[in-house]
Amino acid sequence: MLNVKRLSLADAELILDGCQRKAVEVGTPKDMAVVDESGHLIAFRRMDGAKFTAIDIAINKAFTSSGGGRATRDYKTVAGAGGPAFGLHTQHQGRFTIIGGGIPVVVDGQIVGGVGISSGAADEDHAVAEAGIAAFVATLKS
Amino acid sequence: MLNVKRLSLADAELILDGCQRKAVEVGTPKDMAVVDESGHLIAFRRMDGAKFTAIDIAINKAFTSSGGGRATRDYKTVAGAGGPAFGLHTQHQGRFTIIGGGIPVVVDGQIVGGVGISSGAADEDHAVAEAGIAAFVATLKS
Amino acid sequence: MLNVKRLSLADAELILDGCQRKAVEVGTPKDMAVVDESGHLIAFRRMDGAKFTAIDIAINKAFTSSGGGRATRDYKTVAGAGGPAFGLHTQHQGRFTIIGGGIPVVVDGQIVGGVGISSGAADEDHAVAEAGIAAFVATLKS
Amino acid sequence: MLNVKRLSLADAELILDGCQRKAVEVGTPKDMAVVDESGHLIAFRRMDGAKFTAIDIAINKAFTSSGGGRATRDYKTVAGAGGPAFGLHTQHQGRFTIIGGGIPVVVDGQIVGGVGISSGAADEDHAVAEAGIAAFVATLKS
Repeated sequence: MLNVKRLSLADAELILDGCQRKAVEVGTPKDMAVVDESGHLIAFRRMDGAKFTAIDIAINKAFTSSGGGRATRDYKTVAGAGGPAFGLHTQHQGRFTIIGGGIPVVVDGQIVGGVGISSGAADEDHAVAEAGIAAFVATLKS
Repeated sequence: MLNVKRLSLADAELILDGCQRKAVEVGTPKDMAVVDESGHLIAFRRMDGAKFTAIDIAINKAFTSSGGGRATRDYKTVAGAGGPAFGLHTQHQGRFTIIGGGIPVVVDGQIVGGVGISSGAADEDHAVAEAGIAAFVATLKS
Repeated sequence: MLNVKRLSLADAELILDGCQRKAVEVGTPKDMAVVDESGHLIAFRRMDGAKFTAIDIAINKAFTSSGGGRATRDYKTVAGAGGPAFGLHTQHQGRFTIIGGGIPVVVDGQIVGGVGISSGAADEDHAVAEAGIAAFVATLKS
Repeated sequence: MLNVKRLSLADAELILDGCQRKAVEVGTPKDMAVVDESGHLIAFRRMDGAKFTAIDIAINKAFTSSGGGRATRDYKTVAGAGGPAFGLHTQHQGRFTIIGGGIPVVVDGQIVGGVGISSGAADEDHAVAEAGIAAFVATLKS
């Protein structure tokens, strides 16, 4: 039998709160998603003015990073044009995304979920995801 | 040019807060979605223990009620087996759902969004959506 | 070699003009589509206030009637619950629709296109499609 | 609650009239789509002889530019092979397109819709979309 650790809704809300504070700080409204360790959506927020075309992308970034156990931007070299895993970006009906902005949530060496941010530059999206995860991790230590 | 009213993220969070209180009261964890007047997701929460197979259904109930301007359960007679609009449930790649639990959010006679609840009996889902909308509407009057 | 008759864009616009006049008369804004004899979209109009969830349905009604050579409502008995062709409504990724509101355009015994109307009661949608085709056919006789 | 401006059907028809005049001028029949600020189709025309394989592409260009708030051709560098957002073109089930020919319609700094043209060279498609928007914008000033 396996024991699986999984983000709760309360955990996901903490992450989104952290993401939202960072998004306000950088000044770009974001689509923000948190999925569990199985890639299923736990919580989502679209800030006022964030793109409707970024809703699915945010969810897909969270999905991909939860499954792959790495930040979506880390797929760029391996899965970009000319890379050995080129083509990954069409898998899962195109849901597998290699655009920066998705980060797995790892606790005690286990993937417990993923965060995906979209509606801006990939590096900014990544930073917003990172801020949300940091806000959550800080609560674990106290 | 047309002028359209749309739920903000803050409005959607108020609705989900109301839904969540009702879900706790009835004792069933729920997947809960709020979309805007064009059917695009604004906010989503999956309560701990709610079914992952109900995520899409909640989102689709919100989508359908926002588009159709009526509660999804009101489609049962017209679009159920033998009804004049039988077949509606396969439209939009199957996103159009005639299962109870979706309710449009109407303010001053205009559809401004939709709420979809899933992970339980259709009537219970409907009641949870209703409670969320009531909580939001109450804030408009004060 | 085959000779195929096909509605032109000008023909399709005449049909939509006729549909739109009828929709104004019955007082319901409609989503209105005209496809060619191969089921491909020629022209589409969403009247102000017509449902966004009826866009695809209007297009699918036109598609189905052009392919099947009959009004979509005529499938109700044969393809409804208990009918010998039950299941048709899931074909073509659910695009095959048996809801009234789609009518083929037939000239000299040949199907030259299809009209699909949605955003109201099926019989009303059918009447609006009929009015558009009648307006077009009248121009052929003069 | 948010207030949103949206193109009406009459606005969309003005845009398509302008696009069609330009398409006649450049001598290529076009598939031409106008969507609202939420990416939903308002009006579509396929000129006689335009490709049936360009119908969806025109609609998707309009969808993408309405959501992204920029011309689809402006995604080429950022989302082309080697770009930081490579993979965007598979999102939304492949509807997100980075091929030139889609332009958002912006009025008073707000996205109110999008125009997508297809069935020719990307730069020509872009020019046709531009001409349609210019024709519409001219009516706002008078």
